Amino acid sequence: MSSVITGIAASNGIAIAKAFVYEEVSLEITENSTEGAEVEKANFERATKTSKQELEALKTKTEEQQGKENAEIFAAHLLVLEDPELVGAVHTKIDADNATAAHALNETAAMFISMFESMDNDYMRERAADIKDVSQRVLRHLLGVKSASLADLYQETIVIAKDLTPSDTAQLNKEFALGFATDIGGRTSHSAIMARSLEIPAVVGLTNVTTDVHDGDVLIVDGINGEVIVNPDEATVEQYKEKRAVFLDEQEKRKRLINEPSVSKDGKSVELAANIGSVKDVDGVLNNGAEGVGLYRTEFLYMERDQLPTEEEQFDAYKAVVEKLDGKPVVIRTLDIGGDKELPYLDLPSELNPFLGFRAIRLCLENEALFRTQLRALVRASAYGNLKVMFPMVATLEEFRAAKALIVEEQEKLRAEGISFDESMEVGIMVEIPSTAVIAKQFAKEVDFFSIGTNDLIQYTLAADRMSEKVSYLYQPYHPAILQLVKNVINASHAEGKWTGMCGEMAGEKTAIPLLLGLGLDEFSMSASSVLQAREQLLGLDSKKCEALATQALTCTTQEEVEALVNEAIR
Amino acid sequence: MSSVITGIAASNGIAIAKAFVYEEVSLEITENSTEGAEVEKANFERATKTSKQELEALKTKTEEQQGKENAEIFAAHLLVLEDPELVGAVHTKIDADNATAAHALNETAAMFISMFESMDNDYMRERAADIKDVSQRVLRHLLGVKSASLADLYQETIVIAKDLTPSDTAQLNKEFALGFATDIGGRTSHSAIMARSLEIPAVVGLTNVTTDVHDGDVLIVDGINGEVIVNPDEATVEQYKEKRAVFLDEQEKRKRLINEPSVSKDGKSVELAANIGSVKDVDGVLNNGAEGVGLYRTEFLYMERDQLPTEEEQFDAYKAVVEKLDGKPVVIRTLDIGGDKELPYLDLPSELNPFLGFRAIRLCLENEALFRTQLRALVRASAYGNLKVMFPMVATLEEFRAAKALIVEEQEKLRAEGISFDESMEVGIMVEIPSTAVIAKQFAKEVDFFSIGTNDLIQYTLAADRMSEKVSYLYQPYHPAILQLVKNVINASHAEGKWTGMCGEMAGEKTAIPLLLGLGLDEFSMSASSVLQAREQLLGLDSKKCEALATQALTCTTQEEVEALVNEAIR
Repeated sequence: MSSVITGIAASNGIAIAKAFVYEEVSLEITENSTEGAEVEKANFERATKTSKQELEALKTKTEEQQGKENAEIFAAHLLVLEDPELVGAVHTKIDADNATAAHALNETAAMFISMFESMDNDYMRERAADIKDVSQRVLRHLLGVKSASLADLYQETIVIAKDLTPSDTAQLNKEFALGFATDIGGRTSHSAIMARSLEIPAVVGLTNVTTDVHDGDVLIVDGINGEVIVNPDEATVEQYKEKRAVFLDEQEKRKRLINEPSVSKDGKSVELAANIGSVKDVDGVLNNGAEGVGLYRTEFLYMERDQLPTEEEQFDAYKAVVEKLDGKPVVIRTLDIGGDKELPYLDLPSELNPFLGFRAIRLCLENEALFRTQLRALVRASAYGNLKVMFPMVATLEEFRAAKALIVEEQEKLRAEGISFDESMEVGIMVEIPSTAVIAKQFAKEVDFFSIGTNDLIQYTLAADRMSEKVSYLYQPYHPAILQLVKNVINASHAEGKWTGMCGEMAGEKTAIPLLLGLGLDEFSMSASSVLQAREQLLGLDSKKCEALATQALTCTTQEEVEALVNEAIR
Repeated sequence: MSSVITGIAASNGIAIAKAFVYEEVSLEITENSTEGAEVEKANFERATKTSKQELEALKTKTEEQQGKENAEIFAAHLLVLEDPELVGAVHTKIDADNATAAHALNETAAMFISMFESMDNDYMRERAADIKDVSQRVLRHLLGVKSASLADLYQETIVIAKDLTPSDTAQLNKEFALGFATDIGGRTSHSAIMARSLEIPAVVGLTNVTTDVHDGDVLIVDGINGEVIVNPDEATVEQYKEKRAVFLDEQEKRKRLINEPSVSKDGKSVELAANIGSVKDVDGVLNNGAEGVGLYRTEFLYMERDQLPTEEEQFDAYKAVVEKLDGKPVVIRTLDIGGDKELPYLDLPSELNPFLGFRAIRLCLENEALFRTQLRALVRASAYGNLKVMFPMVATLEEFRAAKALIVEEQEKLRAEGISFDESMEVGIMVEIPSTAVIAKQFAKEVDFFSIGTNDLIQYTLAADRMSEKVSYLYQPYHPAILQLVKNVINASHAEGKWTGMCGEMAGEKTAIPLLLGLGLDEFSMSASSVLQAREQLLGLDSKKCEALATQALTCTTQEEVEALVNEAIR
C-alpha cells in the first residue's frame, strides 16, 4: 500500500531509495555519585578529552569531503567543550549535589539549552542544538554507550530519524544517504540548513515518520513539495524519476547565474544580498552570487563572553567583512540586544512583555558608552570598504536623531585624531515598528536608507508573538496591511531619492518576490543559499506585471486572498 | 520662604488653607503564632466582623452625606471581606505556616494586591487599592492600633498624605478638607478619581510633599496646573483667590451644559459618550450629560467568581444598562480576557509576551461555547434599547467574519424560538491593532462601526509596553503615526457611510479633542466626569480650524512638535 505523508520542504530535490530508520540511543543516567567528586571530575575530563579527539577527527574528515564551511560546526562544538562557564557549572554541580558527572552535565546542558531555545533568533536556537549534540556525545562516553553511526551506511538509503544533530548530518555520506526525513524541525532548524548546504533532498516536521515508516520500505522524498511517499507503485516511481531529472537539470542551469546581474525579464535591476552573523558566513555569500550583505547582525560579537567586546575587536570584525566583500555594500546593524536576548554582563530588567520592551536602540541610547564604542569601530571600519550603518527598533525620529548625532560626534573626534573613515558612509534604519512604517515620509527626509525587518514588523502590526503557539497563525507576511506598510516605506524613500531593502525572511520567499518587485523594493536580503533561486525567479518576472499584481494585492481583504492571487500569477 | 512644588493635576480647582500632614500608622506584624491556629482564626473572625460593622456605618454615613455613588466603594470593601477565596487563603496560611492571623492576612493581601496591580486595566488596579485599604482596616483591629481619622478635622485644611485610600477619602468632609496633595498616584489612581467626584482640588504624584510640607504651613493647591505653593506671600494669595473665583464661576456655567448638545462653535455635532464597567456606573453617565455609552467592558461579569456567568446573568446585566440609557446608544464590548487578565476557571496558557498573545477575540473564537453564550445574551438584550456589539483585538477580517457569523447564527436560532431582538443591531470592532487601522478601508465595507482603542493601539504601533517603566516614554498618543492611523480609520468609515468612535483615554484629553474633531471623529467616549469639560471645550472650537490644525499635525515629525502645535492653537 502506497501512502503520502506531508511535512515541511526543507531541502529541494527528489530522492528515491529504501528507508533506514535511525534511532537515538536512550541514555540512563544515575543521579548520585558513589565514587566521590574527584572521581566524577576525572571521568568528566576523560570523556571530554575523548569527545574532543572525535570532534577534531570529524572536523578534518568533513573539511576534506565537504569543504571548510560544513566543518565549522565542529569548531563550534569544540568551543562548547572549552567553555569555562559550562565546565565550571558541571564541576559546581558535582561538588554541591554529590552528583555523578553524567547527571551534572545533563542538568547543566539542559539549562543552557532551554536558555538558548527561548531566544528570538535562529542562530541562538542553533546554539541550543550544538549544546544538545555535544553534551550527548560526552554523555555517551561517560556512560560507555556506543552509538549507531550514520557513517556505516553501505547502500543507497533514505535516512529516517526523529531529528538529525550536526554530528549526524556531518557523518552523512552523500554517496549513500540520498535524502532524509524527520519527525521534528522546520525550515530553519539545523538539519534543514545542513540538508540545503549538502544539497540532499529533505522533508522535516513529519511528526510520526519514524513510526509510520519501517526499515526497508521504499521511499520517495520530495523536498520540493515537502512530501514523503511510502512504497510507491512503479508508475509513481517513474514519474518521480522524471521529476528528479528536470530538477537536476534546472539546478545545474542555476549555477550559471552566480555572476549574472539581478534583473527582471524587462530589465529592472535590483540587489540580491545576504544576511550574515559573522565573517565566517562571507564565503557562503560570495559563493552564492550575492551582491552584498543586507544585514550583518553584530550580536554574536557580544555573546558567549563575559565582558563587552573592545573597540579593536569590533573594528577587526567589521573590517574583515567589508574587506572580503571588496567594495560590495555591507549593511551593519548596531547591537540588537535586550528583550529576550540577554547578555550576562549587562544588567537588563526582566519585563512582562520583552518584545515590547527595553531593547536594541532603546537600550543603546541609554548605554551611551557601549554604543559609542560600537559606532566608533563602525566608522573606522568604513575606511576599508562599502560599509553602511543601520539602527534597529527605531520608533521615533528623536531616536534616530540621537543615534545619528553620536555617529557625527565620533566622526568629528576621529577627524581630529587624523584617523580616516568614509565621509559619505550611509546611515539608515530598520523599519520593524509600525509607527516608523506609517510616518516613513517624515523619516525619509533624514535617513539614508530603510531596511524593512519583516519578522518584527509582522508581529507588531498584527500584535501577535510569533513564538507563541496559540497565536502564531496571526504571523501573516501576506496580510494586506503588511504590503500596505511596505509600499508606504518604499514610496517614501523613492520620493526623497533614497532606497529601501528588506532583510526579513520574507525577502527570499517565492510568493513574496513578485509582490516586492512590484512594490519597487530595491534590495532583497536573504539566506545566501536562497540567492540563486531568487535570481532565477527574477529573470522570469515582468516588473510591470508585478506592479499590477501588487496593486491588486493591496485591495485584497485577507492573507489567503493575497496568496491565492500571487500563486495563480506565478503558476 | 515661599516655594512651588509641581505634581500631577488630579482634580480641578484652587484651594487655600493650612496644611494637615496625615501620617499612616505603621503596623508591626509578628510572624509566628504562639496561640495556635484556632485562636488566630477566631481573632481574624472578630477583626473581620468589627471591620464589617465599621464599613456598614461608613457606607450609611457616606450615602447620606455624599450620595449613593460615593458609598459604593464600601459595598466593594464589604465584598472583599466576604470573598471566600481571601478568607480561605488566610485560614490555609494560619494552618500551614503556624502564622499569626495578622501575618497570614498581610501575606495573602499582598499576593492579591500584586496580582491586581499588574493588570492592564484601571478598574483592576482600583481593586488592588480596595484590598489594600480593607486589609489595613482589619490589620489595625487585629493589632489593636487606633487610626488617626480624617473625620476629626475641625477647621479648613489641606490634607497632605503619602496616598489616600478609599476609606480616607470617604471620611473627608468637604466643609473642612478643602483640598489634598499626595506623594504618589496618577490621574487614574483612586484618590484622584475620588477627588474629582467630590470636586475637591487635588494634586498627586508630588513625590516628597509629606516631608517638604509641615503641619500649619499655608498652602495653595492648584489642581488646574498641578502645583502646590507652600507659604505664599500676600500678593500670591490674592492672585489665587481671584483665580479660584474665576474657576468656580466657570464650573457653575459648565453645569448648565448637562442637557446641551455636543456641538462645535460652527455647528458640527459629535457624540460625547462615557466608558463604564457595570450598571452601577450608569448614574454617573447620566448625571454628567453623556449621550451614550461608548464602551461597556464586560470583563467584570466574568471576574470575582468561580465559574462562567450564565446567559441569564449576562442578559440581565446588559438589559439593565440599555434600559437605563433609555434609547441612547450603548456599545458593549465582548469579553476581553487573556494576556495579563486571567480567569481562575479558564485554563489559559502562560506566555512570554502576553500583550502579543492569546486574548480577547482570539480566545473567544477558540472557546466557542463561552462566546456564543455572551453573544446570545447580547442579542436578546438588544430588544430593550439601543445596543451595539463590538469585538476587541481584531487583527484580520477572517476574525471579524467568524465572530459576526456566530451572531447571525444565534439571531437565527432566537428567531426560530420566537424571541425578539433588534434586527438592525450594529456590530462593529475595536481598532487597537495596527493591521486593522492600516486596512480600515477593507474593514469598513463589512463592519457597522469602528471604535479606536488608543491604549493598545499606541503600544502596538510603537512596540512599547506602557506598563514597562523603561519604555513608557514611548507610549506617545501624539506620535504623528497614531494621528495618521486615526485619520485612516475615520476616512475609511466615512467613505462607506459608517461611523468611528474612540474609547481610549485620549478621547477626553484637552490636547486631543481639537485634533480628533479636526480628523472627523464621530464619537468621543471617556470617563463620565470628563464629559462636561469636553463639551465646553467643543463649544469653543471651530471645526474648520481644527481640520487645518490636524492636517498640519500630520506633517509633524515628533509627538513633541504635535503637542507644541496644538497647545499654541488652543492657548
